[in-house]
Amino acid sequence: MGLFHKKRVFLDYAAGKNNPSAIYKEGVEAKKRLEEARLRAARLMQVQARDVVFTSGGTEADNLALLGIVQDVPNAHIVTTSIEHPAILKCAEEIKRRGGEVTVVEAVDGVVQVEDVMSALKENTILVSVMYVNNKTGAIQPISKIARRINEWRKKNNSTYPYFHSDASQAIGMLPIQFSSLGVDLLTFGGSKISLTKGAGVLAFRPHVKISPVLFGGGQERGIRPGTENVETILELVSALESAEFGRTNEFERLQQIQSAFIKEAEKIPGITINTPEHSSPHIVSVSFEGKLHEFLAIQLDHEGVSVSTGSSCKFRGDGTEIEALRFSFGQETTISDVKFAARILQKIMLE
Amino acid sequence: MGLFHKKRVFLDYAAGKNNPSAIYKEGVEAKKRLEEARLRAARLMQVQARDVVFTSGGTEADNLALLGIVQDVPNAHIVTTSIEHPAILKCAEEIKRRGGEVTVVEAVDGVVQVEDVMSALKENTILVSVMYVNNKTGAIQPISKIARRINEWRKKNNSTYPYFHSDASQAIGMLPIQFSSLGVDLLTFGGSKISLTKGAGVLAFRPHVKISPVLFGGGQERGIRPGTENVETILELVSALESAEFGRTNEFERLQQIQSAFIKEAEKIPGITINTPEHSSPHIVSVSFEGKLHEFLAIQLDHEGVSVSTGSSCKFRGDGTEIEALRFSFGQETTISDVKFAARILQKIMLE
Repeated sequence: MGLFHKKRVFLDYAAGKNNPSAIYKEGVEAKKRLEEARLRAARLMQVQARDVVFTSGGTEADNLALLGIVQDVPNAHIVTTSIEHPAILKCAEEIKRRGGEVTVVEAVDGVVQVEDVMSALKENTILVSVMYVNNKTGAIQPISKIARRINEWRKKNNSTYPYFHSDASQAIGMLPIQFSSLGVDLLTFGGSKISLTKGAGVLAFRPHVKISPVLFGGGQERGIRPGTENVETILELVSALESAEFGRTNEFERLQQIQSAFIKEAEKIPGITINTPEHSSPHIVSVSFEGKLHEFLAIQLDHEGVSVSTGSSCKFRGDGTEIEALRFSFGQETTISDVKFAARILQKIMLE
Repeated sequence: MGLFHKKRVFLDYAAGKNNPSAIYKEGVEAKKRLEEARLRAARLMQVQARDVVFTSGGTEADNLALLGIVQDVPNAHIVTTSIEHPAILKCAEEIKRRGGEVTVVEAVDGVVQVEDVMSALKENTILVSVMYVNNKTGAIQPISKIARRINEWRKKNNSTYPYFHSDASQAIGMLPIQFSSLGVDLLTFGGSKISLTKGAGVLAFRPHVKISPVLFGGGQERGIRPGTENVETILELVSALESAEFGRTNEFERLQQIQSAFIKEAEKIPGITINTPEHSSPHIVSVSFEGKLHEFLAIQLDHEGVSVSTGSSCKFRGDGTEIEALRFSFGQETTISDVKFAARILQKIMLE
C-alpha cells in the first residue's frame, strides 16, 4: 500500500456509481461530498446541516414544505396568498381536496399585507406560506414583518403553530436568506433560477419542525426525501448559491441600475404601465399594455431577438384583478445595453 | 436576417435558461429536444410518446405508478411482492396508512409465483406491481406470464382492472422492455443504473391508464409531473437507454460469461451459498456465508479494493426467510479478470 497504486474493482453496478449510501470507498467519498454541500448550504442560511434536505427542484421542495407539514394533521388550516407560485397554489388545492382548510389572502398592488395574513389566522392554522419575492412583478413581500407577528401570535396563544414558510426562489442572490434575519421556520428554493443546472432544490427548516415525506422509498435525506441523491447536481447548486450569496450586494446594485435604465426607457413608450412596485427585487420588471394580447407581443419580441416571458400563467394579480403582462428579468450576463436594446425593440413593436 | 448574425438578448432569468415551457426561441428549442427524447424513449418501449412521463428518478416514477393510480380510488386493493424495491414497499405502506388494502405476496426461492399473484386478486384490486428483475439476487420474475393471466382475469371479470405495473430498473440493457412482449400496463425505471447521470427516471403506460399527480405545481408533463423538465439530464438518460437497448443481446451474453466465471470461482470458497437462481439477469450474483456479518465482509472487500453492496437493506428474502448477503453486480466496464480478482479476494478474506 502507500507506494503502489492499488487495484480497485467496482462491482456495484446494480446500485450505480456515486451512490452516497454505499459503504465502500466510492460511496463514502460521495457521501462526504454530499455532506460538505449540505454544510455549505446550511452555513449560508444559518441553519443546522441536518435541517437541509435536497430535492429534485423548487416544486418538490414546496410540496414537502406544504404537504409534508399538513398531511398528518386532520382538519389543518393553512394560509397562503393569491400571488404564490403554482407549486404552492396547487398544493393548497390538494390540501383542500384532502379535507384541509385553506385561506388565500389577496395581495394589494402586488404586495401581501401583514394585517391580512394575521386576520386569516385561526386556532387550527398550522402553516402560513408567503413567497419572498414575487416571480411575476419582483415585488418584495414583508417576510420578516409577518414572521415577527406570527411569533407574537404563537407566544400569545402558547402554541408552536403556525409554522411560517417562504418560497425564496426569486430572492436567491438578491436578498438575505439567513433564517435569523428572516424569522421563517421553513425556506425553499429551486436551482434553475441560479444555475444552468436543473434537477436540484432545497428545503431548509428550524430544528423543531417535523416533516413527513411526500414521496416514499429508501431512507435517504433523514427519511424525508427518498431516492439516491444527485450529488454532482447538488454540488453545482450549492456552488452557484455560494457565489450568488457572496456577490449579492454588488449584483443587487448592478441590477438596480439595469432595472432603472430599462424602466426609464420603457416609460417613454405610449400606453405602458409598469407593474413592478418601488420595493422590488431589481431583477424583474413587469409591464402591461391595456387591450393588447401579451402573448403575441412576446412572440414579436422573440422574433426581434428579445426573449421574455408573459408570466407562466400569462396573468398576474395586482390589486385583485388579473391583468396580462410581459416580464423582463435580468441576470448575471445582462448589460445596460441589453435592456436598452430590449426597450427600443418593445417601443418599435408598439409603434408599428 | 439570414446573412447577418442577429442580436439576441435573453431576458427571462426569473424562469431560467433551457425552460421547455417558454414560448421564445430558446424555450421552443428546449421543448423540441425534450419531445425528441420522449419520442425516442417511447419507440424503445413501443408506447405512444404522450404516454411517457419523465420524473426525477426511479423512486418518483414508482410513487407515480402506485400512489398516482390508487389515490383517487377509495378502498382500493393492490397486490405486490415481498422482494420489491423500498420505493414500492414504502408506497404500499403509505397506501395502507391512507386506508387502502395491500396484499404482499412472498417469493419462493427469490421468484414470485404466478399462482400466488392470481390467488391474491380480489374484486377491488386496481393494481398489481411486480418487479422485472430483483435488485438483490438478479432473479428474473415471470412478468409476461403474470400479464397474460391478469389479462384473462380482466376479460373474465369484464373489468379494466387490475392494472399491471413492473419496475424494470434492473432489466434495462439486459431484457426486452417492449410493452407488447411484456404485456404490462405501466413500466418504470430510474436512470442511475444505466448512466452516470442521476436525476431522471421514466414512467411509461398504456393509453387507457389514468394517473393522478403525486406532486403538485405547474402543468408540465401533461399535468402528471410538475416542475421544469431537466432536458439535458433526460437526453443523457435516453441516449444511455438507447445504447443499452441496441447493445443488449451482446452485453447479455458477455455478462453471462462474466457471471459464470465469477460463480465458478466463488463456488470453490468453503461455506459459500450462491443465492442467485439459474434464471437470472447476468449482471448480479448474490452470495451468503452462514453466521457471518456480511457488512463486515463488504468492508473487508472494500479494504482489498473490491466495491460491493450488502443489498440496500443488508438482507434479501429467498423463501420467506431473511438472510444476509453480498451482492456482486457487473456493468459495461467489468471484465473477466475483474471478477476473478474479486473472487480471489473473497476467498482470501474467508480463509483468514
